[in-house]
Amino acid sequence: MNLNAPRGTQDLLPGVTEKWQYIENALKELCTNYHYKEIRTPIFEHTELFQRGVGDTTDIVQREMYTFTDRGDRSITLRPEGTASVVRAFVQNKLFGSPNQPTKLFYVGPMFRYERPQQGRMRQFVQFGVEALGSADPAIDAEVLALAMNCYQSFGLKSLKLVINSLGDKESRNRHREALIQHFTPHKEELCSDCQTRLEKNPLRVLDCKKDRNHPAMETAPSILEYLNPESKAYFEAVQQHLTNMGISFIVDPNLVRGLDYYNHTAFEIMSDAEGFGAITTLSGGGRYNGLVEELGGPETPGIGFALSVERLLMAIEAEGIELPLDDTLDCYIITMGERANQEAVSIQYKLRQAGIQVDKDYLDKKPKAQWKAADRLQAKFAIVLGDDELDRSVVAVKDLSTGEQEEIDYQKLESYIKSALQGGK
Amino acid sequence: MNLNAPRGTQDLLPGVTEKWQYIENALKELCTNYHYKEIRTPIFEHTELFQRGVGDTTDIVQREMYTFTDRGDRSITLRPEGTASVVRAFVQNKLFGSPNQPTKLFYVGPMFRYERPQQGRMRQFVQFGVEALGSADPAIDAEVLALAMNCYQSFGLKSLKLVINSLGDKESRNRHREALIQHFTPHKEELCSDCQTRLEKNPLRVLDCKKDRNHPAMETAPSILEYLNPESKAYFEAVQQHLTNMGISFIVDPNLVRGLDYYNHTAFEIMSDAEGFGAITTLSGGGRYNGLVEELGGPETPGIGFALSVERLLMAIEAEGIELPLDDTLDCYIITMGERANQEAVSIQYKLRQAGIQVDKDYLDKKPKAQWKAADRLQAKFAIVLGDDELDRSVVAVKDLSTGEQEEIDYQKLESYIKSALQGGK
Repeated sequence: MNLNAPRGTQDLLPGVTEKWQYIENALKELCTNYHYKEIRTPIFEHTELFQRGVGDTTDIVQREMYTFTDRGDRSITLRPEGTASVVRAFVQNKLFGSPNQPTKLFYVGPMFRYERPQQGRMRQFVQFGVEALGSADPAIDAEVLALAMNCYQSFGLKSLKLVINSLGDKESRNRHREALIQHFTPHKEELCSDCQTRLEKNPLRVLDCKKDRNHPAMETAPSILEYLNPESKAYFEAVQQHLTNMGISFIVDPNLVRGLDYYNHTAFEIMSDAEGFGAITTLSGGGRYNGLVEELGGPETPGIGFALSVERLLMAIEAEGIELPLDDTLDCYIITMGERANQEAVSIQYKLRQAGIQVDKDYLDKKPKAQWKAADRLQAKFAIVLGDDELDRSVVAVKDLSTGEQEEIDYQKLESYIKSALQGGK
Repeated sequence: MNLNAPRGTQDLLPGVTEKWQYIENALKELCTNYHYKEIRTPIFEHTELFQRGVGDTTDIVQREMYTFTDRGDRSITLRPEGTASVVRAFVQNKLFGSPNQPTKLFYVGPMFRYERPQQGRMRQFVQFGVEALGSADPAIDAEVLALAMNCYQSFGLKSLKLVINSLGDKESRNRHREALIQHFTPHKEELCSDCQTRLEKNPLRVLDCKKDRNHPAMETAPSILEYLNPESKAYFEAVQQHLTNMGISFIVDPNLVRGLDYYNHTAFEIMSDAEGFGAITTLSGGGRYNGLVEELGGPETPGIGFALSVERLLMAIEAEGIELPLDDTLDCYIITMGERANQEAVSIQYKLRQAGIQVDKDYLDKKPKAQWKAADRLQAKFAIVLGDDELDRSVVAVKDLSTGEQEEIDYQKLESYIKSALQGGK
C-alpha cells in the first residue's frame, strides 16, 4: 500500500498551518481595505471551461491539467488557476447585473497542475487572487497593482520589483503580431518545435519561451510598445501616472508576456531578488483581460486581476528572514494530583473553554512532574493546580508561569480571575 | 459549451462567503480554546487509502468516490471525508513521535462524494472535523463530544440532541456480531440485497439500513449494549459520567451505528429538530476508532473524532432564524467632482487603505449624484468629498453618513481624522 501523500502534494502540519492562517487572514484584511469580497468556486469544473478560458495553446491546458471522466461521463478538470472559474461564476450568477460595479472579487484556495514537482512548485498549490470585472478605468489597473504589491509589503518584504508592460488592444496586438511573424519567420527552423507552432498560433508567446530565450533574434524582436495605437498608449500612460502618484516604483519591460492567452493592455509581474532565493523569482503576475467574459458567454465586460502563490509568498517571507508575529502560547494548563482531581478537572476545563479561555490538560495519566513539564513545553501562561486538598475546599491554585507567583482561587471566581489575569499580562 | 458549475457543486458569492468566513473563524477559535491545531491534507489521495481507511463495504467507497487515473498512471481519489487523510498524515509525518500527546487536530475543507444532489447534500461540500490521536481516556471522548456540541451552541443553536452509543471493543463487537447474524439469518430473504451482503460482511450496518428500517426484526434485534464486556461497559459509563458532570444532556440510542467500518467504543451523532428543517436531521457524527492508525501502517494508537458539514451548520443556523453578526458596512466612499479630483482620489484612497481603512470609489465615471447613491448602497460610514475647490486648498470634506455632519479636513490630517472618527463611531 502506498501510504504517502500523492507526489507533488504536501501535508501542512501544526507549526506551519499557523503561518498559513496568519498570511491568509492578512490577505483577506487587505482585500477588505480595498473592498474586494470573497468568492469560492468549485475545486473542479467542466474541462471545456479551461480549454476556452485559459487557452488551448497554453502549457497548462496542453500538458498540466488533472482531467478525468466522472461517474456521469462528464469531462472534469481540477482547476489549474482561478480566473476562468471566477469569470464563469460571474457569468453564470449574472453578477454583472448587480448595481455595484465593478465587481471586485478575491479568492484563495488550492489549484492543481501536473508539473515536475520542485522547490516552490507543487502539483497542488494554493493561489490567492483578485479580479475586478466591469471597469476599463486605468485607475482600477493601478488599484489592482497596488493591492498586489501590498500583499507582499504588508508582511515587511522589501526586495520587490514591480515589472509592467502593455500588450495593447486588439488592433495594436494584431499589428505587433504580424511584425513578430515577419521577424521570426526567417529564423523559424532555428526555434524549438513549440515555438514553431506558436509562431503561427500566438507569436507573442515566442518571446516567453524558456528554450529559445538566448536566440539572437529575441534581442532584436519588435517591441509591442512601438505598435501601441494612440488609445492603448494613452491607457498605459495613465496607469503609469497613477502608480507614480501613489509613489509605487515600477520598471517597464516590453518583453513581459504572460503565459495565458487572454491578456491585453496592462500586464505585470512582481519579482523578488531576495538573497535567500538565489536567483530572481517571479512571485505574482496578472493583467487585463478584456474579452474573456464574452469568450465565456457573458456580456462584453472589461476585467483585470492577478494571482499569487501562497507557497512562494511564504518562501519570500523566509528568504528575507521575516518572523511572522505568531502566538503559540496556551492560556492555561491544568495539573492534577490524584484520580478525583483528574475527573473534576474535565468540568473545570470545560467551563473555562466555554468562556473563551484556551485550556488543556493531560489525557495520558501522567505524573504531576510530567504534567508540569507539559505546561512548560506548551508555553502555558498559567498552571491551574488541583489535588485532594484543593478539591475538598472547592479551590484551585493558579500559578503565573512567567512570574512564578501562585494564588489560591475559589472555583466560582476562577473564570473571572483568569480572564483579568490574561488581560493584565497582555 | 457547458457554462455552468458541475452538477452538485456551487459558487459561494459575496453576501454568502461572509457567513462562511464568520463560521469558519468561530470554529477555529473554538478549536483554539480546546487546544486543537489545524492540519491541511491534500485534496486527493491514493485511492487505496480510502478503500482501507474508510472501508471497502461502505457506500462511500463502493459508489460515491471521485476516482481517476492521473498522468502518472496512479489511481487517485478526491477525498470523500477527512479522517483517513488525517490518520495517513499522522503516520507519514510521524506525529506520534511528538512529546505532545494526544495529537489534537482539526481540519476544514472541501470533500467530494458522487451522490444525487439534494438540499444539504452536495457533491462538493465542506467538512470541518477534529481528531484526537493517542489517548484512550474516556475524558477525551467527553472533550470531543463537548467540542462538537459547542460547534453548534456557540452560534446560539438550541434545537440540538446529542445521541450516543457504544460499539464496544473488538471482543464485545464480535459477540454482538454473532448474535446479529443469528437474529437476522432467519429473515435474510426478506432483507434488501445490500443487507444480505452486509449480514455476512458487517451485520452491524444492517441496523443502519434505510430500506429495511421498518422490518419487524429491527425492533427485536440484539442491542450492542447487552454484549459489552466489563471493560467496554466501564468505558462507556465513564464517558457518560463526564458528560453529566459537564452538564451536557444526551440520549443513549443502542441502534446508533455509524456508516464507517472503523468505529468502536463511543459513537455519537448530533441532530437538530428545528422546525425549519421539517424532519429531524443529523448535523454531525463521529466516534472512536482505535485500530485505524495500525490499519494505515502506524503504531497502535487510539483515536476519536467527529466531522460536521458546514453547509448543514449554516442550514441549522437559518432554520433557527439566527442572524450572524456580520458587518457589511464600508468605512469610507470617496466622491469626486471633476477629472482632476477623480485622479487625485486614487492616491488619497491608496494612503487610507495602507493605514488599514476600508475605502472605495467610483470607477465608471459616474456623476456625483450616482456616487452618493453608491455610498449609501454600500453602507459607507463616511463620504470623503473632493472637488476642484477642495483640491486647490489641499482639503477634503468628510461627511458622517449616519449623522449628516460634515467637516473640512486637511489632506495631512485625513488618515488620523478618519481613524478616530471610526473608533468613536463604534
